[in-house]
Amino acid sequence: MLFEVRIAYKPRVQDSEGESALKGLQTLGFKNVESVGTAKVYRIEGDHSKEEIEEMCKRLLANPVSQNFEIEEIE
Amino acid sequence: MLFEVRIAYKPRVQDSEGESALKGLQTLGFKNVESVGTAKVYRIEGDHSKEEIEEMCKRLLANPVSQNFEIEEIE
Repeated sequence: MLFEVRIAYKPRVQDSEGESALKGLQTLGFKNVESVGTAKVYRIEGDHSKEEIEEMCKRLLANPVSQNFEIEEIE
Repeated sequence: MLFEVRIAYKPRVQDSEGESALKGLQTLGFKNVESVGTAKVYRIEGDHSKEEIEEMCKRLLANPVSQNFEIEEIE
């Protein structure tokens, strides 16, 4: 089985990597960029239930204080 | 407009973050994890063409030597 986990910052939490990309793009001359947000994706292969993947997110992959995660079963 | 860019390592390029997550999950007792791959997502808001977003990827967001990128128009 293949699960995909997508981890992003909660609203109102600072996304420093997104802000840094925004500044970099503006410096390069892309003046129309209004905002940049980022997310991290993990593709996890193995024999798992959705509940186990959720536990992986809570215990290692995501920071439950500042991040949200979404889980999708791909295969 | 909102574009989403997804950046992942090319096949056969080492994904250190994925390997590190794999080891961490196995150490925590998730013994069925076979592999973990990662990708980075950027959501870019502003008035852009798909060609401009492609240029952003080539010039700043992705490493064309080791990474592939996919662009999707969301809104």
